[in-house]
Parts: sequence; C-alpha cells; structure tokens
Amino acid sequence: MSTVHRLTLADILAEHSRSRPLITAVVDGDVRLDYPRLEERVARLAGALAAEGVGAGDRVLWLGQNSHRVLELLLAAGRLGAILCPANWRQSPDELAFVLSDLSPKVVVWERSEAVEAVRSRAAEAVGSGGARWVLSGDEYEEFLAGGPVEPDGFVDDTAPVLALYTAAFDGRPNAALLSHQALVAHSASLLHVRQIEPGFTFLNSGPLFHVGTMMFCLATLLAGGTNVFTPAFDAEEVCRLIDAERCTQAFLFGQMIDAVVAANAGGKYDLKSLGFISHSEEWDSMITVSDTPWCRSKMGGYGQTEVAGMLTFLGLAPGAAGFAGRPSPLVQVRLLDASGEEVPSGEAGEICARGKSIFSGYFNRPELNVKKFRGGWHHTGDLGRREPDGTITFIGPRLRMIKSGNENVYPAEVERVLKTHPAVADAAVIGVPDDQWGQSVKAVVVLRPDAVADAEALVGHVRGLLASYKKPKHVEFAESIPKKGFTPDYDALDERYGGGGYPGA
Amino acid sequence: MSTVHRLTLADILAEHSRSRPLITAVVDGDVRLDYPRLEERVARLAGALAAEGVGAGDRVLWLGQNSHRVLELLLAAGRLGAILCPANWRQSPDELAFVLSDLSPKVVVWERSEAVEAVRSRAAEAVGSGGARWVLSGDEYEEFLAGGPVEPDGFVDDTAPVLALYTAAFDGRPNAALLSHQALVAHSASLLHVRQIEPGFTFLNSGPLFHVGTMMFCLATLLAGGTNVFTPAFDAEEVCRLIDAERCTQAFLFGQMIDAVVAANAGGKYDLKSLGFISHSEEWDSMITVSDTPWCRSKMGGYGQTEVAGMLTFLGLAPGAAGFAGRPSPLVQVRLLDASGEEVPSGEAGEICARGKSIFSGYFNRPELNVKKFRGGWHHTGDLGRREPDGTITFIGPRLRMIKSGNENVYPAEVERVLKTHPAVADAAVIGVPDDQWGQSVKAVVVLRPDAVADAEALVGHVRGLLASYKKPKHVEFAESIPKKGFTPDYDALDERYGGGGYPGA
Repeated sequence: MSTVHRLTLADILAEHSRSRPLITAVVDGDVRLDYPRLEERVARLAGALAAEGVGAGDRVLWLGQNSHRVLELLLAAGRLGAILCPANWRQSPDELAFVLSDLSPKVVVWERSEAVEAVRSRAAEAVGSGGARWVLSGDEYEEFLAGGPVEPDGFVDDTAPVLALYTAAFDGRPNAALLSHQALVAHSASLLHVRQIEPGFTFLNSGPLFHVGTMMFCLATLLAGGTNVFTPAFDAEEVCRLIDAERCTQAFLFGQMIDAVVAANAGGKYDLKSLGFISHSEEWDSMITVSDTPWCRSKMGGYGQTEVAGMLTFLGLAPGAAGFAGRPSPLVQVRLLDASGEEVPSGEAGEICARGKSIFSGYFNRPELNVKKFRGGWHHTGDLGRREPDGTITFIGPRLRMIKSGNENVYPAEVERVLKTHPAVADAAVIGVPDDQWGQSVKAVVVLRPDAVADAEALVGHVRGLLASYKKPKHVEFAESIPKKGFTPDYDALDERYGGGGYPGA
Repeated sequence: MSTVHRLTLADILAEHSRSRPLITAVVDGDVRLDYPRLEERVARLAGALAAEGVGAGDRVLWLGQNSHRVLELLLAAGRLGAILCPANWRQSPDELAFVLSDLSPKVVVWERSEAVEAVRSRAAEAVGSGGARWVLSGDEYEEFLAGGPVEPDGFVDDTAPVLALYTAAFDGRPNAALLSHQALVAHSASLLHVRQIEPGFTFLNSGPLFHVGTMMFCLATLLAGGTNVFTPAFDAEEVCRLIDAERCTQAFLFGQMIDAVVAANAGGKYDLKSLGFISHSEEWDSMITVSDTPWCRSKMGGYGQTEVAGMLTFLGLAPGAAGFAGRPSPLVQVRLLDASGEEVPSGEAGEICARGKSIFSGYFNRPELNVKKFRGGWHHTGDLGRREPDGTITFIGPRLRMIKSGNENVYPAEVERVLKTHPAVADAAVIGVPDDQWGQSVKAVVVLRPDAVADAEALVGHVRGLLASYKKPKHVEFAESIPKKGFTPDYDALDERYGGGGYPGA
C-alpha cells in the first residue's frame, strides 16, 4: 500500500478535526469533546501507550463498560499500529483470565465499577499482571494520557489489525477476531450507504461495545463525522433521557430493549422524535420517526458475524427478496461452497463464504485455524446458507457438521430447521448414522410439544415436502429433550446416545 | 493484498451474476443483457483479449461513442489486469495520434460512425497500426468476442490500474490518469452514499464515457447492481425517450442539457417522473421527481477531478457550509499545503492535496511527473483551495503558478477570482513582475466591462478588502482582452507583454 492511498482510523480523525472542527465527536456523561479536542487527546494517549512500549501488533485491553475511552483507545492504538480489545465484562473470571493470558496485553485500562471489579480481581489473581501496565479509568487514565508526548502520525498500513473482538468458541474457548483499519472503514462505508447516514447523525451506544453490533455503528458514526453518545450499559430510562437531550438519530436497540424504552416513556416524558428508526409497535412508532432508509425498512438487518466486521448481507439491498438475509454488501463477494470448495447450485445449502474489503484478518495467534478459515482464498463463516432463484441469500444456520448420504451432502442444521417448522415439534436434532448401503443415513431426534401428536411418517413427509428427498430422515426417535452445548445441540452426546457415526473426513 | 480481501471490478460482476441474476445490467439500443449474460460475455471477451497477448498492465483502446462495449471492455481488461482507455472521439486527429502512440494499445476497438471515422482514419494514417489489433465494433466485435475462450477468473490485485482517462494537459499534451479497481470501487461507494443509490437504480449514460463525470456514475451503478442505459451521445429527444422507456432514475445532465430536455419534452410527450434529480427550473421540476438526497440537494456537487476518480469533496456532506465545495468524501483526507509541503492555516489558500482510497495511481508512463504529483505521500491536485472556519472547503481555482513577494506566497488564481467579483471587471489575470525590494510584486491585467468605470486605486482597494494586504496588486494595467490557453490565461504571453518574471523556482 502506498501512502497516498492510505486510510487508517487515525487518518479519519485527522480529517474530521479539520473538516468538522465545530462538531461534537463524543458525549459521555460530563465529557463532551469536539473533533479537534478528540484528536489532541488521542495523539497524547498514543504517546503514553508508546512510552509503555506499545508498538505495531501489540495489544491494549479495555476492561469496563461503555465509555468514550474505548474509542480513544482504539484510535490511539490505531495510530501506533497496535490493537485494542474491549473485553466482555459480563464474562466469568475464568473466561477473562483466559482472555488476559491469550491476548497478553501491554496495557490494560480498567474500570472500578461493581460490575467489572468482581470479575477483574479474580481474573487478575489467576493470571497475575503478566507484565501489563494496569491503568485505572478516571483520574489515573487522565494523568496517564496527559503525561503522554504527542505521538507523531506515523506510517501505519491500513491493512494492519486495530480491533480485536472475542467470538467463535469453536472448541469451547473463544478466539479474538482481528479487524483491520481497512475492514472497519469498508464496513462503515457500507452502513453509511444502507443506513443512509447523513450529516448530524448522532448514535447512542446503548449496547455493549465488546460486540460488533454496537461497535459497527460507533465506527460508522465516526466515519461520517457524526456524534457518538456513550452510556455505560443499557438502562431504559437513561436511554430515553439521552435520546431527548442529545437529539440522537439512532441507538442500539431491538426487541425487548425497545419494549423497555416504550414502557419507560409511557407518559411521554421524553421527546424521542429525533430517532429515525425501525417500526416496532404502535406505541413505539408514535414516539419516534419511523425511517424509510433501506436499513430501517425491515426489522431484521441481514446476515452478519464479527469476522466480517458486522454485516455481510443486507435485507435492505433486496426489497421483496425471497432470501431473508438479502444481498451482500457492495464491498464483498459471497459464495456458497461445499466441503470440497466447489460452489453449490442455486437452491442448495452450502457454507456461506466471503471475500472482500470488510473481511477480518484472521484470529489472533491461531495460525492453523486461520489457514482453515481462509482456505481457497475465501473466508469460511461456518454458517450455512442458500441462494434463492432471485439470487438473494437465506441463512440456514450454523454448519457444525455434515452428513454424507450416498453421494449427497446433508447439513443437520437445514433438516433441523425444517423439522422445527412442523407444528407438533418443540425441538429437534439431526445426526448421521452408519449405513451399509449409503455410507450414512439421516436420523432425527425429536421432542414433541406437550399434547402434540405426530408420528415418524408424518415428520418424514413434512421434511420431504420442503427439502430434497435425500435429506429426509430415514430414522426418527422421540426424546424428552435434546442435549445442548450453549444454544446448539451437543452432537457428540447425541451420537453416543443414538448411534451416530461415519461422518465424512472422520 | 491477500485474496480474501480482494475486490476487483470482475469480482463485482461475478457477485452480481449470482445475487442479481434477473436484473438487467445494460441496455443499449436492441442490446439488453442481464448480469449473468454480461458476465459470460466479459469472460469470453477477456479470453479473446488474452489470445491477442493482452496481459497485466497492457492497454486496450475504445474509439467510439458511448456503448455497452465500453463497460464490457473495461470489465474484460480488469479480469486480465489490463487497462481500458475510452478515447475522446471529439479530439483532433493530431491529438488522437498522440494518444495512440503514447498509450501503444495492444487492441483497439473502433466504431465506423461518421463522428469517429474522420479522426480515426487520419490519426491511424499518422501513427500506423503500431502493432495493435484493430477490431471493428459491431459484427466483427461480436465474432472477436465469441471466438474467445472463457478466461478463468485469475488473481488480479485490486490496486492494479484498470481505467485510463486522458486529462491534465500541464505542458500542452494530456496525460492518462490511471485508476485502479480499488479507487473506482471506493469512489463508487462514496457515490452510493451521497447519492443514496438504492436497488432499481437505472442510470442513463447521456454524457461521454471518456470523461469521469459520466463514467463515475456508470461505475457506481455497476457497484450497486443497477442498470446502465447507454446512448451514443447527448440528444435531447432520445434522452426523453430513454428515460421514459427504461424508467431511468438518473441521467448525466446539467445546465443547458437540462434546458434542451425541457424544450424537447415541452408537450409532455414523455413521462420523466422516474428521474430523481436536481431542481433546475419550474418546468423541469414539474417533469421529474426532485430528489432530496444529499447529492441532489445542490446544483453543484462539490470539487473533483479525474485524478481522484470523480469527486473529492461533496457539498451534500456539508449542509449550510461556508465553503462551496463542501467536505471530503468519507474515504479520503484533504490537506491544503504550501509549496514546501506544510499545511496552511485555516482561511489561507493552499494547494488542495489528497490521500485515500479513491486517489489515482499516477499517469501512464510519466514517472517523473508522478513523483512530483505524489511528493510527501499526498496527491497534489494542482488546484487551490481554502478551509473555512467551519472546516469546509472552498475551491479557488487552478494553481498554475505562484508569485513570491517578500516572504509571502501569492497565487494568481486567488487574486484573479477576487478581482472578478468587482462589478466593473469583465476579466482579469495576475502575474508577478521582478521587484528589487520584494523579489516580485503583483501585477493585475484587467479588462473592464463595457461602459464600466474603475481606476487602479479602486480595484486595489477591492482586493485589499478581501485578501491579505500583500496579495493586492501593486501595479494595474488595463487591456482589451486577456490572452488565453483554452479556458485559462496564457501566462507566458502575459509575462512577455506586461513584464512578468522572477518566479520562485524559475
């Protein structure tokens, strides 16, 4: 990359401090910073981090609730070619201890809030300081920042990672997805497009910044030169107050959060009309301005994951689409691939694979996993999807494992999804059992709804009506419950109990 | 660049042929191609070009009026890492001969229209075939394309140039600005944002594709997966017919072109309501749908040039701005630099310099000029601008040359612009004359309006009231006219006639 084509997060801030000197960049409690002031603080913070030995590729950890400091630390890390990880303060001490030793940050900025302190102290006990400099958010952070020399704007390649978000616990432990300046800028550009973000955009960071869902709008707001309003964590009354006081044009809200906001504002105490957002309920719609941007036209935005910096496909780009995940962002390609890397025909389930500007740079310190995820030059999302006849994409579910029956591939998630659409079925899991003739055959383990009646024949017929015949279960067993690992079936336990085996590649 | 982050124009087409199989990609007379059919043709055309020896970095020339073939050739060249140049068919045979020998294309696709043939035959006479394969547009082109093997989708780095547009005749001869896949995609993404391009966007290519103004919307339409409608050249009646027949949502139209369309549709024969475009006149506004997107809110889009792939700044991103060029695209940085590369303070004139995703890759075969244009890691536009107190940018005019008076820099374009705001002044040019005390001093050559009266003192006072005192002319001479080179003053002639000289660096 030549300098003349570079665009890092630090570059964006440098431009805004010139192009938008009068615009408020961040609001956080009593803190209110315009773009020039934010840039000044970020330059000093970068200097302070550099003085602690933070350089290209090094990690900085934020351990706290939402704060403008997350954005400051991200921009300062970016100025040095370093990486910020906002840690999940809701996780267990054991999980945080894993993150601390996995990421080995050079600087940890932490918050002494009740929510954070319990997990922090026990995690720190477990791993020790690990040589990291721990800086307490608040006065100590201000002193740390103020003591920093102004870090000159050095050369950072915009393909360098700058943000690490833990996700994707494939094997029981999470992995830190690394997102580059380029990926974050490209994804933000796609949100500017689909959400039709305009001058004056003011985003309330009311969801956790350690998840991509909130972070992606925080960064799109930054790219647009808008205003980011921070609140430590979701609180319905405080969300109302901030929308009213700061004239927020969008917030991170969905489902039950919206219901809670409606309840908190039942008397109409707060004016939420500045919010241009999705339709939800009659009451909600009367409080806000229902927006007609492609992003807001549907309640479900599309398909995404941390590894693609947020959204890979947008429903807003495919009005009237057959596939409920919509169409890809303009800055990516999507392919539905089989296990051998070949594209599956339209209508068939395949792994959702992607290539393009907003794709992550791999997981931190997982070279073998990264080779696997990027095989053939495509990022393998680990999720299943399908192209509909109109070219739009349906997200089926996590891939997990594949059954090989005859010469055909059968993905349990797809069969399970169809089984669950039967009115009598409360839950279902699908495994492959060894079959002398076909290698494997499909077996369904089904939990019926209380008082519901359905026999195996009815369920097999239901699947056969909606999927290719070879995908229908050959065997059905009824059970009281499906063993789970988190939200997904525990296939190892299912295989053991119901005779699964013979999987391809196994 | 890793494959997983690649996004070439060919990649975009490959995605659309999957995501938008039912959408019409191009309309051109009787030709109507959906995305899968366009991709199939492009793959064959790439194969045919490769069979002629066209490979990475090689040039293909289009010599004709607007056609869907321009887009096909661009995409096919992009698939090979090669470069398409759509030549200006309005130029003189001498100018075209220069382009042919400068660019040395391996393949020329040409059109036997009356407009093109005169210039082509005389230019070809002058330079000979140069070893190029000449393919006649129409049946011969179809045979050429059909004979191509399907070119596999190879690895092309998206920072490779793919489009060459002649511009910037600094020294009397134009230079071919090279635009990479990345630059074109990034610029298109900025248009998707500012124009709020949505599914169903249908662009009428009614301006010449050898200029960036039309090409940039053609490519934004491609990125959005919309429909490009081609017409050979602007014809008001045909523009009306096509907008009506194809339900075009935008066209390349401005000023007098709009007036001509209004006149052609005086009887309301055509329904132009599909067009969501800028307000222009009462009649026009009643024929179309006046659009409220940021792009359409103002008649003047911002500041741009070929070397930045189109627009560098957008007025639509700066509502109520002091600077009439607005604010930079989200994907670039802008700096106003002095001759030594230092940033000038807000309010001072400096050269508009830029860095970011949509900046060009330099001029074809001009290594020394490129070093100069990219010095310090910034693209030097050659134009002067100023930051206003609100951070927005005012475009002043071309830099051309600089006067050094005392230790101060004076840009003729800036002083001329101010002189021309005096009601008595019809035209003005500013030169530097040698000055024993100050090195140079400022001299204005002024043409008064018929019957207008103003003396030197009044004009100097006018300038002093609007610019720093050292910029005011020390000498004023009145003239009947200003000698010109194209649209800009002929400074060499002015220097000779009015005693100019002593310029810095000269």
